[in-house]
Amino acid sequence: MEMNIALLPGDGIGPEVIDQAVKVVKAIGQKFGHKITFTEAVVGAAAIDATGEPYPDSTHEIAAASDAVLFGAIGDPKYDNDPKAKVRPEQGLLLMRQKLGLFANVRPTFTFPSLVHKSPLKLDRVDGVDFVFFRELTGGIYFGEPRGRNEQGTKAFDTNVYSKHEIVRLARMGFEAAQKRRKLLTCVDKANVMATSRLWRETVQELAPEYPDVKVEYEFVDAVAMRLIQWPKAYDVLITENLFGDILTDEASVISGSMGLMPSASLGTSIKLFEPIHGSYPQAAGKDIANPLATVLSAAMMFDYAFDLKEEAQLISDVVNLSLDEGYVTEDIADGGTSYKTSEVGDWLAAKILA
Amino acid sequence: MEMNIALLPGDGIGPEVIDQAVKVVKAIGQKFGHKITFTEAVVGAAAIDATGEPYPDSTHEIAAASDAVLFGAIGDPKYDNDPKAKVRPEQGLLLMRQKLGLFANVRPTFTFPSLVHKSPLKLDRVDGVDFVFFRELTGGIYFGEPRGRNEQGTKAFDTNVYSKHEIVRLARMGFEAAQKRRKLLTCVDKANVMATSRLWRETVQELAPEYPDVKVEYEFVDAVAMRLIQWPKAYDVLITENLFGDILTDEASVISGSMGLMPSASLGTSIKLFEPIHGSYPQAAGKDIANPLATVLSAAMMFDYAFDLKEEAQLISDVVNLSLDEGYVTEDIADGGTSYKTSEVGDWLAAKILA
Ligand SMILES: [Mg+2]
Ligand SMILES: [Mg+2]
Repeated sequence: MEMNIALLPGDGIGPEVIDQAVKVVKAIGQKFGHKITFTEAVVGAAAIDATGEPYPDSTHEIAAASDAVLFGAIGDPKYDNDPKAKVRPEQGLLLMRQKLGLFANVRPTFTFPSLVHKSPLKLDRVDGVDFVFFRELTGGIYFGEPRGRNEQGTKAFDTNVYSKHEIVRLARMGFEAAQKRRKLLTCVDKANVMATSRLWRETVQELAPEYPDVKVEYEFVDAVAMRLIQWPKAYDVLITENLFGDILTDEASVISGSMGLMPSASLGTSIKLFEPIHGSYPQAAGKDIANPLATVLSAAMMFDYAFDLKEEAQLISDVVNLSLDEGYVTEDIADGGTSYKTSEVGDWLAAKILA
Repeated sequence: MEMNIALLPGDGIGPEVIDQAVKVVKAIGQKFGHKITFTEAVVGAAAIDATGEPYPDSTHEIAAASDAVLFGAIGDPKYDNDPKAKVRPEQGLLLMRQKLGLFANVRPTFTFPSLVHKSPLKLDRVDGVDFVFFRELTGGIYFGEPRGRNEQGTKAFDTNVYSKHEIVRLARMGFEAAQKRRKLLTCVDKANVMATSRLWRETVQELAPEYPDVKVEYEFVDAVAMRLIQWPKAYDVLITENLFGDILTDEASVISGSMGLMPSASLGTSIKLFEPIHGSYPQAAGKDIANPLATVLSAAMMFDYAFDLKEEAQLISDVVNLSLDEGYVTEDIADGGTSYKTSEVGDWLAAKILA
């Protein structure tokens, strides 16, 4: 297959971890005979430094023309501490999502056999957990109008708003993902009290007959907040609105015990972007110590979600687990034992893929 | 002290568990020399059967004239399965909250030494956890207008709205509770994106100087959803709006491993109501098998929150823990061992108080 991949390393440890993902992707390309082209572009503080804009048009053109985007992280403390800064790196993230039309945030939760003991949950509750959230990312109460204050400033309001087409496109992604997984879809809402939630539930109910192989369950957001802790293995694919997803995906991220290793995807109608859920970690930048596994696993998600290449995705996941089992890891998860540089871990993973 | 307590047993197991709480409260009154008067009134399905209304005026008058209300549970399946039913028992709950002006829901989370092993969390994370949520109960997105659909029905909206005075009265309760506890208050919001949350944060910041002995922290709702699982012992008192509280109090309820034993309070400007968080459990009604401990612990909360009688509250909590340690419990938590009737547990607790 031919693949045209845009690389947006961003700030902090972004460039270092993206480098390792590139090594892994190249190794996969070599092993499976894919022709992969990489095109790099700036975003975030790096882009402000270079062009004055956090998400310049030149970067957008490269991302929009790609088959998939591999993104590192955004954020540089020099802008946080500068009250005069007119543009901030984080604006690049919002602009990028907006301009690329990335309306679905995909957040898997799974465990690593050799790290699951770090979970705050008991082993029998969490071992083998494997679910994925599809969170609506561009609608809901974070964007709805009107929002603000009354004249006296004594009353504030936000508007949660959803149109049917926004729900349909997100829900279809969830149904399709469920078809390729364990065929269980959970629609998370608060339909007993919220009008938007009733539209979500009604819309999902209308779509369900088109996916007869998928079992659909409807649960209230507060019940899911409980059951994610009690019985996380009961879930497969969950779909939800922006605010509920913001809360629940973060809750979900800690149950594996390996939040720093979790990948994610943001999907639009045509564009697909993959990124670690961790940030730019500026204190570690340039030291060759950052853990590249979340970004490497984001590349695995790319093969799965952007190219439907399960075998390639699985092989990356397998070598990542091998590196954990054999302790070929960066210092953050070495538990005081022997640790390796960011670049050494990338080389090791690429070599194992080709071995 | 003279205490005038309204008893609203409600439906299902409500009457049985309230009976045990009354035994315990009477024993406390006898031991500490309080003159306690009980006045009983109907609510829920029991009230519909008797008067046609789920929260009749006669009941409201008794509750409104009391120093504290002990409430059991509401709900009867015969109304769930009757589509022609014009009034439903659950309406009694909403009416009661509304008419009594109960704007704060108080939800403690703590562990029982002999039951903490049932927590889904690892022992070192959860053992000794002790925090309490103050959730705003009558405002926010569940009540805000406008709400509904556009003409075509293709777009839905809800409005989250908060007035400063609603935040002030809830926040003051939180500050005052923190002063009597470990002096840490966490304001839970989403002030980085929501206008209502910015008003919450700003209002709490304005009040903070009046409580110089309380340390105030501000955390985003998604961060709290994570930290409740990772480091629940870090919290003392948390205050938050209605929707966030709905989600987070349910998440919090499962971490102790003893959800069925958790008490709660709903507080207004003058009225204070205490109730178990469990429901009416109609399958068990009349069998003398229901676990009365959540209701008994709600009575402990009553002595603490309604009468500021810490010693009385602590003694109830102590005898409850004693019953757990000695296995004098109902069958739901007997783990297949010897179990006792609801009424026997109540008698045992009252006897231990007087012993
Ligand atoms: Mg979040
Ligand atoms: Mg709830």
